[in-house]
Amino acid sequence: SGLVLVKNPHLDLMEEDVLYHLDLGTKTHNLPAMFGDIKFVCVGGSPSRMRAFAQLMHQELGLVGAGEDVADICAGSDRYAMFRAGPVLSISHGMGIPSISIMLHELIKLLHHAKCRDVTIIRIGTSGGLGIEAGSVVITDIAVDSSFQPRFEQVVLDDVVVRSTELDKDLAEELLACSRDIPDFPTLIGHTMCTYDFYEGQGRLDGALCSFSSEKKLQYLRRAYDAGVRNIEMESTAFAALCGLCGLKGECCRLHLL
Amino acid sequence: SGLVLVKNPHLDLMEEDVLYHLDLGTKTHNLPAMFGDIKFVCVGGSPSRMRAFAQLMHQELGLVGAGEDVADICAGSDRYAMFRAGPVLSISHGMGIPSISIMLHELIKLLHHAKCRDVTIIRIGTSGGLGIEAGSVVITDIAVDSSFQPRFEQVVLDDVVVRSTELDKDLAEELLACSRDIPDFPTLIGHTMCTYDFYEGQGRLDGALCSFSSEKKLQYLRRAYDAGVRNIEMESTAFAALCGLCGLKGECCRLHLL
Repeated sequence: SGLVLVKNPHLDLMEEDVLYHLDLGTKTHNLPAMFGDIKFVCVGGSPSRMRAFAQLMHQELGLVGAGEDVADICAGSDRYAMFRAGPVLSISHGMGIPSISIMLHELIKLLHHAKCRDVTIIRIGTSGGLGIEAGSVVITDIAVDSSFQPRFEQVVLDDVVVRSTELDKDLAEELLACSRDIPDFPTLIGHTMCTYDFYEGQGRLDGALCSFSSEKKLQYLRRAYDAGVRNIEMESTAFAALCGLCGLKGECCRLHLL
Repeated sequence: SGLVLVKNPHLDLMEEDVLYHLDLGTKTHNLPAMFGDIKFVCVGGSPSRMRAFAQLMHQELGLVGAGEDVADICAGSDRYAMFRAGPVLSISHGMGIPSISIMLHELIKLLHHAKCRDVTIIRIGTSGGLGIEAGSVVITDIAVDSSFQPRFEQVVLDDVVVRSTELDKDLAEELLACSRDIPDFPTLIGHTMCTYDFYEGQGRLDGALCSFSSEKKLQYLRRAYDAGVRNIEMESTAFAALCGLCGLKGECCRLHLL
């Protein structure tokens, strides 16, 4: 049916669903009227970048109005920022798996309540590249954990639940084809490794703590490259798992800056 | 010596240390002049709450000026917000362990470069209470993981490093004594459980996914209570571990709202 799937039997029994961190709710807002026509959701870490992206979309889609004054739909909360430009929603998710997970739970419920159909979600932004040219964009075929395994292990009360982290292969190919239309736009498809820590977790030597040698770091990153990893960031496994479970066609596209 | 400890042999060899997510650096800013006299750091999730807290401190400390126009020291970055009122620094850390970890790594390096001495750090804000009265404040004696163990397990490249999550007992008692001076201010010392997920990880029945029964949730929360847990949040184990390793006297004080 193309509808977003919510997998929670309790939800239909609730009189009101408050999307706390988005400052939206089923009683306070007419979600189908506000969001029913959304077809694309783009998410990224930083609120100001997601505002700039919504302004760019506004311009690219030739929408009426200036676009510079695009309003933050979640202005009543400072947890996340949300902007729209026509059928495109642009939302910030902060940094790390716990932060993106809260946003995705509430976004998925929002799209469900709004009865949206055939929604595509794309994670955009920057990441650390691994053995690739600076300025390259990595389109993720599969997100892997720090053991290079395609899984998202999540603690749910007593249990460790293991979830698949495959992304939409057709969408990845479609995005790669788009990149070919733009000159000097190095783009590749590869695995994306997701870590819980930016400094020690990614083998950085410039944190407040560094409990490993430079040699150990190099060996680890070489093994990551050999396992197919082309970039490293902090949200992709949770993103892939949640989108996959809830019937959202999802992809990650990230720019390697330095 | 009371100095903040950085445990990274590479740091002294670096020509410049850029604190990326705070938009500060050792070449671009005179960190000892800006921060050398800081004695207290208060951290919490939300930027607007941390701004309001700095304004309150400004007023309580009887500092000159209005206090309403307290400037965001990290205005060039939208990852975190930082304000100061006299010897008190007030910083937002976003939601979840990965987000607070990035901020703490850079804050610890900042305090180190600024040659700060005898700094106390307190995490403030709200959390979910467990079997306690609404409006109570929980002062954490020890942070525990979702198995109720006092540890922070962190993946560092190939290894799982286990770190202690004890907080400063004297500081906890001092804070409890402060609460006794205020009428109708229910305050207790207890364990704080830290999870990686807000919805399924905390046994909430209102997420987009819910893969457990209400009975299982109740059993789990009862066992948490029996293990001494009095509130649940998403940052305390990483906070306790990083502060402990770097010689920062740290505490968590969180209000149970509902």
